Order: sequence, then structure tokens, then C-alpha cells
Amino acid sequence: MTALVRLLQVTASPPSLQDNTGDLDRLQRAIRTRPGFAACRLVVPHRRLKELAAHFRACGFRGVALLNELPAVPGPAPAGEPAGWELVDFLAASPLRLPALALDLGTTHLEAVLLDLLSGDELGRATRENSQIVHGADILSRIHFAAGQQEAGNGLARLQAAVIGDVNVLASQLAGEAGLAAAEIRALSVAGNTAMGHLFLGLDPYHLCREPYIPVVNAPGPVAAAELGLNLHPAAPVHVLPGVGSYFGGDLLAGIVACDLDLAAEPAMLIDVGTNAEVVVGCRDWLVACAGAAGPALEGGVAKMGMRAGPGVIERVSIDPDSGALSFRVIGEDRVVTESSSAAGAPPPPPARGLCGSGIIDLMAELFLAGMIDIRGKFRPERMGERLVQGPDGPALVVAWPAEAAGGEAVVVSQVDLDALMRSKAAMYAILATLMEQVGLPFTALGRIYVAGAFGRHINPRQAVVLGMIPDLPLATYRPVGNSSLAGARRYLLAREARERIGAVAKKITYLELNVNHEFMIRFSGSRFIPHTDRSLFPSVPVP
Amino acid sequence: MTALVRLLQVTASPPSLQDNTGDLDRLQRAIRTRPGFAACRLVVPHRRLKELAAHFRACGFRGVALLNELPAVPGPAPAGEPAGWELVDFLAASPLRLPALALDLGTTHLEAVLLDLLSGDELGRATRENSQIVHGADILSRIHFAAGQQEAGNGLARLQAAVIGDVNVLASQLAGEAGLAAAEIRALSVAGNTAMGHLFLGLDPYHLCREPYIPVVNAPGPVAAAELGLNLHPAAPVHVLPGVGSYFGGDLLAGIVACDLDLAAEPAMLIDVGTNAEVVVGCRDWLVACAGAAGPALEGGVAKMGMRAGPGVIERVSIDPDSGALSFRVIGEDRVVTESSSAAGAPPPPPARGLCGSGIIDLMAELFLAGMIDIRGKFRPERMGERLVQGPDGPALVVAWPAEAAGGEAVVVSQVDLDALMRSKAAMYAILATLMEQVGLPFTALGRIYVAGAFGRHINPRQAVVLGMIPDLPLATYRPVGNSSLAGARRYLLAREARERIGAVAKKITYLELNVNHEFMIRFSGSRFIPHTDRSLFPSVPVP
Repeated sequence: MTALVRLLQVTASPPSLQDNTGDLDRLQRAIRTRPGFAACRLVVPHRRLKELAAHFRACGFRGVALLNELPAVPGPAPAGEPAGWELVDFLAASPLRLPALALDLGTTHLEAVLLDLLSGDELGRATRENSQIVHGADILSRIHFAAGQQEAGNGLARLQAAVIGDVNVLASQLAGEAGLAAAEIRALSVAGNTAMGHLFLGLDPYHLCREPYIPVVNAPGPVAAAELGLNLHPAAPVHVLPGVGSYFGGDLLAGIVACDLDLAAEPAMLIDVGTNAEVVVGCRDWLVACAGAAGPALEGGVAKMGMRAGPGVIERVSIDPDSGALSFRVIGEDRVVTESSSAAGAPPPPPARGLCGSGIIDLMAELFLAGMIDIRGKFRPERMGERLVQGPDGPALVVAWPAEAAGGEAVVVSQVDLDALMRSKAAMYAILATLMEQVGLPFTALGRIYVAGAFGRHINPRQAVVLGMIPDLPLATYRPVGNSSLAGARRYLLAREARERIGAVAKKITYLELNVNHEFMIRFSGSRFIPHTDRSLFPSVPVP
Repeated sequence: MTALVRLLQVTASPPSLQDNTGDLDRLQRAIRTRPGFAACRLVVPHRRLKELAAHFRACGFRGVALLNELPAVPGPAPAGEPAGWELVDFLAASPLRLPALALDLGTTHLEAVLLDLLSGDELGRATRENSQIVHGADILSRIHFAAGQQEAGNGLARLQAAVIGDVNVLASQLAGEAGLAAAEIRALSVAGNTAMGHLFLGLDPYHLCREPYIPVVNAPGPVAAAELGLNLHPAAPVHVLPGVGSYFGGDLLAGIVACDLDLAAEPAMLIDVGTNAEVVVGCRDWLVACAGAAGPALEGGVAKMGMRAGPGVIERVSIDPDSGALSFRVIGEDRVVTESSSAAGAPPPPPARGLCGSGIIDLMAELFLAGMIDIRGKFRPERMGERLVQGPDGPALVVAWPAEAAGGEAVVVSQVDLDALMRSKAAMYAILATLMEQVGLPFTALGRIYVAGAFGRHINPRQAVVLGMIPDLPLATYRPVGNSSLAGARRYLLAREARERIGAVAKKITYLELNVNHEFMIRFSGSRFIPHTDRSLFPSVPVP
């Protein structure tokens, strides 16, 4: 194990008149007798001097030193050697566990894992809404809020305090569940998009959203938890994972390392759909990335009844192409709700509240295969029967009747919702195609496509292929990888190899700015049909 | 110039869509294009991120980076290469001056020099009493006070606050006199004894005065001024110079470097008399040091009318061996006061207030040469005439008659005072002789003896030789060097070579514990005569 925090057994000779060097000089001298520590950089932060010396003395000059690894310096360093250590604590004996927190710092949600750095075991996992949401739902409105002055302090300080508070709640909760105190947590790694990283560190995000979109810093150094107001151990190093630019943060670099994209012998791809769709293609020799606004519809954020995956949300829809009968399944229920199951005498169906991204994708693919929408994604009223209704936004399709719906209000999807999904799916395919065009490879060169996040967990790749959202490849090519950002943050804590790789990836990756790419706009237009204007791109999709 | 703080002209390409890395990444990239900076360690403290990036941007991405040198790591480092840099500020253009403060942190007095790191020029110099004195006049009483709890906070915190306040006053005063603000001071070096260094850093001095006399740390790393509550620039690095042990602090290491003792081809000696007498002997190949309680009488602290050198204080005394006529000179006056000058009709003599160490030494040597005291330092009443009086402490000698004295009270030196000086001079010679015995060299092997401090500035070496306080060597051997501790702290700021040497000296020096040395006690006994029981050691001193 080459965790970010290391325990080192140390036995120093006790002080005497013949050996009367200082306590901390004695401790450092003893550490330097250990293999690999002879000539390393060893620093003691000023704030730790007093307590460290007192603990060392109280332990009788023998016990366990706690060392935080210092980040590597660019340039040639001895292989496998850390750049140095920060000496922060001394314990009488090795603890049974060495807790550390890995955090995926999302715009909407925070997800954290409490780890034991000694065993690598997961001690707990929790999620929490980002409290910054009350100051703005999306990144742009938060950047705007950050620049303002409010009576309770400036906007930036309030946003920082909100997210620090969230992390403190998660830390206390996870520590408590594991029988620990938050102050026993000895390290924190944070993977987030660049704006979230800025707000977490209290850095001005003003230029992130203004051309040419410049972060204050891509690779901030570690900072002690106490300096950020975190309730972890005061000397716990907090590492905000490096990013590459305004649109390409540490969350995505963490994902690349979590999927081993940077080690792959054959080209592979990582798709992470959050508020943006972020895509990386590459292998051990090269990496190219891009991002674009394709997400909201796919996360359920565009359709009027769209929502994030959760209990009571429709995630699967199927339509019998002959009878046009629609059935669906809600998250948290094994039963499929069919036309007949809602007939008189049957047990009441589980109430549906809305549709998540995968539910809308399923629905739209099934509508297309049943001939109920055309290749432009427009309703064909003559094929829809009684499910076609007039809603406030114009024509709409009833997915769940009032009797099947929570609150007794039918779950409907309108033409407006479908149009939004068409734009999202077109943007997604255009992003992927433009990226492959830029790297000069066909989709078939990709051995794996990793699909991250809730989108990857819930989507049925076959339905996404039918819609022409993702390329028509063997379905085994697609691999859901869950929260790859969190997985990367976790690896960062556990293995020096992962820390070094994230730094190397940040240097190696080429970022492609799609917003200024003419090629992308052309491809976007051709992708606004199901599956595409060029049907030869999707040979497996039948003509309904 | 290889000052502790360096200015580096930097021109970065401005941000663009094609080059959209972060502000601080851009700055670091530009720094790395400068010779010698390609692969160096470059860190930005968390607290400086925001302001540094804002300044860099406000300067249009070109200007002058301000870099603090990081301390070297033990072990093989490329010659002449610094261990790394801390990047803390960015300026539009090179300032005309780069102010830094060097401080001699004494138990009784603080003396500071304001320097310009660009030219090496001295911008000002000031002294101030150590405010800790109200909590204890000497080191032991302050260590005792530090351990106590008072209503206004614990003793240690109060002592730290007192001395930090003193440094702030000195910084404001010196900056103001130079037309600057204290916040423009960019670095501070502190040379003090080990206890003073502990109190300055807020470290517990409890074990310094208890066997086996262990400091918390001998070589503390640098700390930002803001962390200590200093009113310098918040990012100014504060370096407390390393010491070797409880009785051998950074003040003496600074003195060694200031006198180039560690570079000497032939053995030389440094004597620093403060509250303790601290002595180092050595050359470029070896260094041996010791310390002992010999000081108070020599600083004027033992004799009832003894005082530190200052206006109105008698610093020179001479006695005509034939007539027994006594004359003296007070500091700040050119005239010598003689028996005849105080006769009727002459202008009134300058009033005398007391005697400083050099005055008492002069007096005692002249008394001996005039046969007015014997080889034990005892008055010979039959030779003293009307100057012998009976004081509250028994027999005493009138040095200045009431008409010559400030306040109209005669300046007298009693037998008790002379006995104290005899003990001090014996201790001093015993220290020097024991040290030379330990290193196996005769005094004649010493090419130079540097005498530091007020003692060195005022003493007449010939008179000290007559007393047998210092060895009977050609007088040109003795060199007064002033405040060598402050001179070393000043060099530390200006030259990397001096910083590296101080670290090297700390490792190289051997410290001899005299308190546990039997040899010392034997030599002390033989030295309690004028000049010595063994007259052959002082061939130049006449038998009166």
C-alpha cells in the first residue's frame, strides 16, 4: 500500500546528556534511519510543532510517526520515490484503522466514501445535496452569486462555507456510522469540476465562464484541513485533484484513472454525463477530451416530468409494436406495469412519479420502433390511440395513467420534451463523432466505451443505439462504471501510482473546445434524426 | 546576491482559447522557462493562491515574481542549487528596495537591522528591551513563568505575545524611518538563544532547563509571518536560526558564520559574553564549543554599581603606580577625569553613574599593577590612602568622588564586587583553558580570538590579560566583532552560502558540557589568582 498518509514505526534513543538533541530533531533522525527516508524532504508544519513534540515525548520516544506524502515535483524524480513527507503526528502504537475520505464534489450532489488506508476497505458511503443549490442551481448562476456582495459576507465566502459545511456533515455522519470521530479522518481527496473546486478552495471563479475560460489554478497543492475549516484532523491533507481547464476538472481526470484509460493498449472511450457530457478517448499513448452541453435531458432535467433516478421513477418502458400496448417499470419495484395489470381486479400498480433519463430514452426508442413517432421524433397521432392527450404544452403521450401515478396525476411526456431529448441525443452523437473525427479513428477502433455516472448505471445501451445517441457497436463494448470520479478520488488516496498517473494524465491530455468547432455544428444537424440522416451508420437499427 | 527572497522577471503569454491553462499554472510554467527553475520544487501556500493569481492577472501576466527560498534537504543536493521556492507574490515591476529584518533576540535586549535584500544596504538599526523582562529577568524565571496559568492566558502565550509585540514595534519603527510600512518587510531572520527561540515560536521551554536539557526542536523550519502574528508582509518567511542544544542557540551559530570561524585555515576562537560566556574554537575542519556562567560580572551585572555600557558609565580607569592617582573616562565624554581635574578652579567633571564590565576590569588590573590589591584580589589598605572607605558591604574603593558622580553619590567598588569579578575572570579563563585542553592545542595555536558583544567592544584586552582572564597572547590576536549574532542573522538573509554554512556548522560542531567537567573545576581553582597560580602562563604581566 502506498497511501497518501503513511504510518512509520520509529524507535528513537531517549535523550541523555550525551545525546541531547531536540525532540523533533531526534524524531527526524530516527525516521531517517528507516529505509528510503535517509535523504528525503521531511517538513514539520509550524502548527504541528508543539503537539507533535508533546506526543513524541509522551510516547517515550518510540511509536508510530504519521507522514503525509508531499506532491511530486515536475521533472526527473527517482522512480517509486515520493517527493518528500510532511510529519504531522506521533502515536503510541499503530491504529487499527487509518480513516480517509474520498469525495465526488458534484454541482448537485456530493458523494463520499470513508476508507481505511491500511486495508483499503470501504468503511461507509453517503451522498448529500450540495447546499450551494439555494444560491443557484447551475454553475453559471453560482459563479454569478460568487461575485456579489451580500450582507452575510461576500458570495464566494458563502458558497465556500456552504460546501465546507456539507463535507463536514458527510464526514461526521460517515465517521459516526463507523464508530469514529470526524477528527480521526486523516486525509481528504476531492474530485470535482473546476468551478466546484474553485468554490471549495475559496478561489474566484469569475474567469471560468468568460472567454478564454481561465481557472485560477488547475493543480492546487495540498492544504491542511484546519485551514479550510474542515472538521477532519486539523493536519489532514486536503488534495483537490488537478484539472486541465475550465471545462475539464479533476472529476474527469479521476475517471480516466479509475477506468485505466491511460493504461489501455487499444483506444477506449469514457463518457461521463452530468450537467455536461464529458468525453475522453485515448490509450496509454495519447488522450483527447472534449465536453459539451448534452446532459440535462439525459439526466432527466429537461422533460417536464423528468427527474433523477430514484424510487418511484420510471426507468424502463416497452411498447408492443403490434398492439401498441405500453408497459413500464419503476425504480425500487420488481413488477412491470402493463396495460392489463392496471385492469380491474389486478393489484394496484406501484405509483410512478416521473421519468429518469434512461426512462425517457427507453420510451423514445420504443415509440420509434412501434412507429408512434417519426424519424424527426415527432408524434404520429394516427398510431397513438387514447394515449395521445392535449397538455398545457400541446400534444403529449400518457406514460402512466392517473391510477398508476403518485398523487393521481398522469405521467406524460410532451412533444416539447421529446424535442429536447432529440437535441440532447443529437449533441451527444455529434460530440462523439466529432471527437473521433479529430483523432482520425472510426468508432469500431474502440475496444471499450465506459459509461459513467447515473446515466451509465441506468441506460439500456441498445435503446440509446436505436435512437442514434451512441454508435452502433456490439453492446458488450459498453461498460457502466458507476461514479468513476469518486472511484478515482479513492484510488488517489490509496496508491501513489494513481496520484502520479493523474498528474501525468493532466499533462498528456489534449482538450478540444467544441463550442468553437464548425465540424461539430454540421454533425449536430445530421444527428437530429432517428437514428441519423445516414442510416448506414446504424445498420442494426430496423426500419419500423 | 543569493538572498532568502528573490525577485524573478517573468513574462507569460496571455491566456487564449488555444492556451487556456490556469493563471497560476501559467505563472509557474513561465517561471520554469527561466534558467535554473526548470525542475525545481515550486510551491504556492494555500493562503497566497487568491492574491497571487489576482496580482498576476492585474499585472497583465508579466512582471516580477517574488520567491522565498525553501530550506535545503539533508543529503546530496546539486551544488549551488536551492532546494526549491515558495511563490508568494507578483509585482508589476521590480521594487527599488526589498526590505528584510535581521534580529538578534536577546534575553535582555532585541537588536534589529533593516536591510535591503537587493543592494545589501543597511536601511536602519534599532534596539529595544525585551518586554518579557516584566515576567522574569533571566531565562530560568521565564521558563518557570511559561509553565504557569494566568488569568490573561497561559504564561507561554503571554511571553510569546510580548516578544512578538517587541518585534512588531521594531519593524514599524525601522520601516517608518526608512519611509516604508512594516507590511513591506519581506523576510525575518532571528538569532537568539534556544530558550528565546522557543518562546518566540510558542514552543514549550519546560525541558530546556531540566536534565538532560532537551529543546523541542533545534532546527525549526520557516513559518509565515502571519502565522506568528507579526506585522510584516503576511507571507514573509520567518527563519529562526538553528541551534545545537539548550545551551547553544542560533545566536552563537550565527556568530560563528559571521566571524568565518568555520572557514578558517588555522584554529581561531570566538568568545561571546552575555549572560553566559559562550566559546567556540575551531577551523574549517572542526569546531568545539562550550558555555559557562561567567558573564554577569563582565556585563556589569554583579558589581553593586555595575551596569551595561552607556552614557555616563565609567569604561576606562587608570592608576599611576607611583602616586596612586586614579583617573577615569566615562562613555560619551572625551575628557579623562583625573585627580587634578577635579581640583578647585577646573571645569566640573562629567558625572559618572557607575562602571561597566570593561571599567571594572580596567580598575582591577590597574589596582593590581599599582599594588593596591594582592594576587587574590584583596584590598591592601596600606596602599589605598583616602580612597578606602567603609561601605554597607564592608571595605570599598572610591572610583568617583561625589563631586564627580551623577546624583552626588560616590561611585564605589567594594571587596565583594572584586571577589565576584575574580570568580568571573577565573571562570572565563578556566572555560578557555579547559576547552583548549579538550581539543589538544595550546593557546598559541590560535591565530585570532574574536570577542563579540558589548564586552568585546569595550574591553581593553591588555587589562584582561593582566588579570589572567584571557590568555597572554599578542594583543593583535584579539578582535572585537560587535554583535556577531546580528551580523550572522544579516548574512543569513543575504547569502545562500551563509544559510548553508549555518546548517553545516550545526551538524559539525561538538558541544562540551562544562558543568559536568571535572577538569574545569580544577582549572577554576588555579585561576582565582591574578593573573594565575602558574605565573609562567602570563610572562608579559609584571610582578608589581
